[in-house]
Amino acid sequence: MPMNPYDPPALESGTLRVTPLGGLGEVGRNMTVFEFDGKLLIVDCGVLFPEEHQPGVDLILPDFEPIKDRLDDIVGVVLTHGHEDHIGAVPYLLRMKRDIPLLGSGLTLALTEAKLKEHRIKPYTLTVAEGQHEQLGDFGLEFVAVNHSIPDALAVMIRTPAGTVLATGDFKMDQLPLDGRLTDLRSFARLGEEGVDLFLVDSTNADVPGFTPTERSIGPVLDQVIAKAPRRVIVASFSSHVHRVQQVIDAAAAHGRRVAFLGRSMVRNMTIAEDLGYLTVPEGLLIDYKKARDLPEDRIVYMSTGSQGEPMAVLSRMANLDHEIEPGEGDTVILASSLIPGNENAVYRVIDGLTKLGANVVHKANARVHVSGHAAAGELLYCYNILGPKNVLPIHGEFRHLMANAKLAQDTGIPAERTILGENGTVVDLKDGIAQVVGQLDLGFVYVDGSTVGEITDADLKDRRILGEEGFVSVIVVVDAATGRIINGPDIHARGVAEDDAVFEDVKPKIAAALTDAAHSGVRDPYALSQVVRRTIGRWVNQKLRRRPMIVPLVIEA
Amino acid sequence: MPMNPYDPPALESGTLRVTPLGGLGEVGRNMTVFEFDGKLLIVDCGVLFPEEHQPGVDLILPDFEPIKDRLDDIVGVVLTHGHEDHIGAVPYLLRMKRDIPLLGSGLTLALTEAKLKEHRIKPYTLTVAEGQHEQLGDFGLEFVAVNHSIPDALAVMIRTPAGTVLATGDFKMDQLPLDGRLTDLRSFARLGEEGVDLFLVDSTNADVPGFTPTERSIGPVLDQVIAKAPRRVIVASFSSHVHRVQQVIDAAAAHGRRVAFLGRSMVRNMTIAEDLGYLTVPEGLLIDYKKARDLPEDRIVYMSTGSQGEPMAVLSRMANLDHEIEPGEGDTVILASSLIPGNENAVYRVIDGLTKLGANVVHKANARVHVSGHAAAGELLYCYNILGPKNVLPIHGEFRHLMANAKLAQDTGIPAERTILGENGTVVDLKDGIAQVVGQLDLGFVYVDGSTVGEITDADLKDRRILGEEGFVSVIVVVDAATGRIINGPDIHARGVAEDDAVFEDVKPKIAAALTDAAHSGVRDPYALSQVVRRTIGRWVNQKLRRRPMIVPLVIEA
Repeated sequence: MPMNPYDPPALESGTLRVTPLGGLGEVGRNMTVFEFDGKLLIVDCGVLFPEEHQPGVDLILPDFEPIKDRLDDIVGVVLTHGHEDHIGAVPYLLRMKRDIPLLGSGLTLALTEAKLKEHRIKPYTLTVAEGQHEQLGDFGLEFVAVNHSIPDALAVMIRTPAGTVLATGDFKMDQLPLDGRLTDLRSFARLGEEGVDLFLVDSTNADVPGFTPTERSIGPVLDQVIAKAPRRVIVASFSSHVHRVQQVIDAAAAHGRRVAFLGRSMVRNMTIAEDLGYLTVPEGLLIDYKKARDLPEDRIVYMSTGSQGEPMAVLSRMANLDHEIEPGEGDTVILASSLIPGNENAVYRVIDGLTKLGANVVHKANARVHVSGHAAAGELLYCYNILGPKNVLPIHGEFRHLMANAKLAQDTGIPAERTILGENGTVVDLKDGIAQVVGQLDLGFVYVDGSTVGEITDADLKDRRILGEEGFVSVIVVVDAATGRIINGPDIHARGVAEDDAVFEDVKPKIAAALTDAAHSGVRDPYALSQVVRRTIGRWVNQKLRRRPMIVPLVIEA
Repeated sequence: MPMNPYDPPALESGTLRVTPLGGLGEVGRNMTVFEFDGKLLIVDCGVLFPEEHQPGVDLILPDFEPIKDRLDDIVGVVLTHGHEDHIGAVPYLLRMKRDIPLLGSGLTLALTEAKLKEHRIKPYTLTVAEGQHEQLGDFGLEFVAVNHSIPDALAVMIRTPAGTVLATGDFKMDQLPLDGRLTDLRSFARLGEEGVDLFLVDSTNADVPGFTPTERSIGPVLDQVIAKAPRRVIVASFSSHVHRVQQVIDAAAAHGRRVAFLGRSMVRNMTIAEDLGYLTVPEGLLIDYKKARDLPEDRIVYMSTGSQGEPMAVLSRMANLDHEIEPGEGDTVILASSLIPGNENAVYRVIDGLTKLGANVVHKANARVHVSGHAAAGELLYCYNILGPKNVLPIHGEFRHLMANAKLAQDTGIPAERTILGENGTVVDLKDGIAQVVGQLDLGFVYVDGSTVGEITDADLKDRRILGEEGFVSVIVVVDAATGRIINGPDIHARGVAEDDAVFEDVKPKIAAALTDAAHSGVRDPYALSQVVRRTIGRWVNQKLRRRPMIVPLVIEA
């Protein structure tokens, strides 16, 4: 139920306009556009992963429509951290204009550049760090450290003549972070003193009561499991979760095991993380997985991708014995990761496969081997209280998350009319300390599908869903152009409908008869004749098979 | 990774043969066949619901292949309780032979008969109750009360000259059940004293530590939520969960609200449950939902189906404003149900839709409004200890559940070689107190798809998945039979591949050229020519669009 679109007024001078293009009403493709005096600043540019009702789609991009004719006005893109839902759409933006400057921390930019390299784009970048100030036209930026499930994440304070905005990116408030880099509440306090006019805040876990446990609490569990493992250990997690991998490395080292990375993204990201000093690896600990097979089985930990049951990732292939490393009796597999909604069946299929091979599978449901990367309700309350923002725009989340976050803001005393529940394309103007909705753009889903971007439409996806649920029946008839007499056919081909095309023998005479009737009535137009075919076979299939496959009739003149 | 099939030996006289046809390695289509001296006893006959890799399928049946030529040998079908995964396939079994006797409790048979009525089958039934003994040929049956998420569930002790088997059906051990009907541990103790040679035991929650909380713990939560609800209350749950509905009725009555049932299965099942005395409804409490709209909004509770996000059920339609009752600001919606893996996205879509309409949505994640119907690990230990079975065959569950259950049995001292990890079609012979695997039947999935049963194959589903992910491209060319010259075409039609068929204009000359080449080389056979078309367009689509749609080439002679 999207809001009805309506155009915002022309942007008044002295007003800051904020328009989220993605990440509201969904978990992914986070992107927000800030406009002041004709110039645009963008924060994040991520992708969304498709759900089951979007079959075949590779990625979903934010709808760039509102900015596509204004690329020259963009002063820069701030990337808060290196997760796909914040950086994944950068290549598609830079395809439109290659020299848009990117700003982000060292790790964030390294991961973005690795991605851009696959698209053969070398970007203009500016590496920034917490405490750093940058001025891009009228946009004054100050970067603030935040803690998340990837190192080196930043929030950004944006100062404009119209007021100040603090955008958190994704964050949580682990008070004992593995790298000692806290979400910088001291700076939040200082910014609160200065005055935050608008607070854009991560809502992912706003409906989770309490506090996210510390990442550090996973270490002892990993340590214990690895200590007791009699043979090989395979740990699967997100390939960007440097701290999780660090804890696996530490536990492996503690128990005299070497570590082999498996999976392209794991190898790539950990190489980057180690090179940049985010991952500390004891000398001689890492080993190539091909050489690891020569080690005794209780001397190795494989660190792999595939924790979400992705069919082509290492872990699924292992479970299907379709990988060089074949798990077996006595091996231990740890899924040190969340279970993203929608992936349950795939993940449980992998767990079952591994169990059947004899492996002991340790996962979230039977041990504390994962904590979330997002602030839960208790942490968000701290933020609201220390910042005291004048206006709040919850971002990053499904509607229920945004709603829960708005309620938390209100619980701390922020008036309901100053908490804005928006969706993608909601246009918010900030002036004189007041933020209000002034328009609603009509934005869509932009599907990356094979080599195409934005070519596949929702109508195509509907076709795919029908084809996927019901299959299709094509009927081809060649008729004499002059007389309408059938020269060849009806030929019927079906896929996904019935085991044997012979089932359609019964309906062929009916189609021929219907066409002959039509021809006698003077119908000659092939399209009109194809509709006669469609009606005849459609009705028959519905009655006989109780199905509604896609009907593809074709009448050809010869 | 199914076990390699091998034939069991001919059944020796004096031996009991046990063959599960469904429910092992999956959650659903529970069915086990017991054979002694040429006669067959069946326990349960349920359906499995399809997963996302089985698109368009309505239901999955157990493979009746091993019994389909032996229908006259069946002495009876015992139905342990009235859930779809235990009774849903009965109509398909009785279609093959209508007079197979059904045995079950009052509620179980009433629900089965209602289902059979839709198939226009009137079965032969024998209503049984806990404590009752029946003799069917050499099979002596004793029924034992068990507690589950539907009333009137039974376990069955099967006594044969070859030994005794206790089959639990689905159960848990709520020590404060709403109806006072406990899982009868006293009888379990007595049967343990007598000696249970083989224990067939529900594994669904075997990997859940501890104990399932009592159903009774939900009542106060429902009461509190309903007490505080300012306007309408809508509760969604399973339409067979009589005790859950009873608690909703009690809470509604306590707060002066009337109750309207919504959804065909809810109305039907609750009518049956009330008629048979399983549901206690205060005089004048129920109201037709059409009349309920005349009541003040704080005087009504709607009890509906759709707790799993099923698109056609009442709750989804409400969330889409596609139902006469349109939820809004101040309304309260309670999802008093589990979240079955695979349904997460659908359920969260419904929750979001309702939240967006202004409703307060209470569900498992934010309140104790559901408990499981299955015994957790702690309860299963009680069973093993009190029964002391000689052999154990864990049933009802994915492999990891069966495995966890076997480990529990071993923890209580049952030797590993006496706990059997089987799958569907595993043939277990029991003789002289020893159960062992003697064969593995090759069983398949039987898909109900529209009006067809067992017609749709795994190959058809693969076609559907390809069609659903990638769409199809059909190419039709009419050629002169004698010369191979193209008379008409190539005509290209695609669905789900590209927004516009115009994209294919480029490849048409290539196809024509390839066909002309082939014709010049003397190829005339339409099938061989169609393969030329397939190769040409297939390669082009893969390169140009980076997709692999289904290619349907057709060369017609005229």
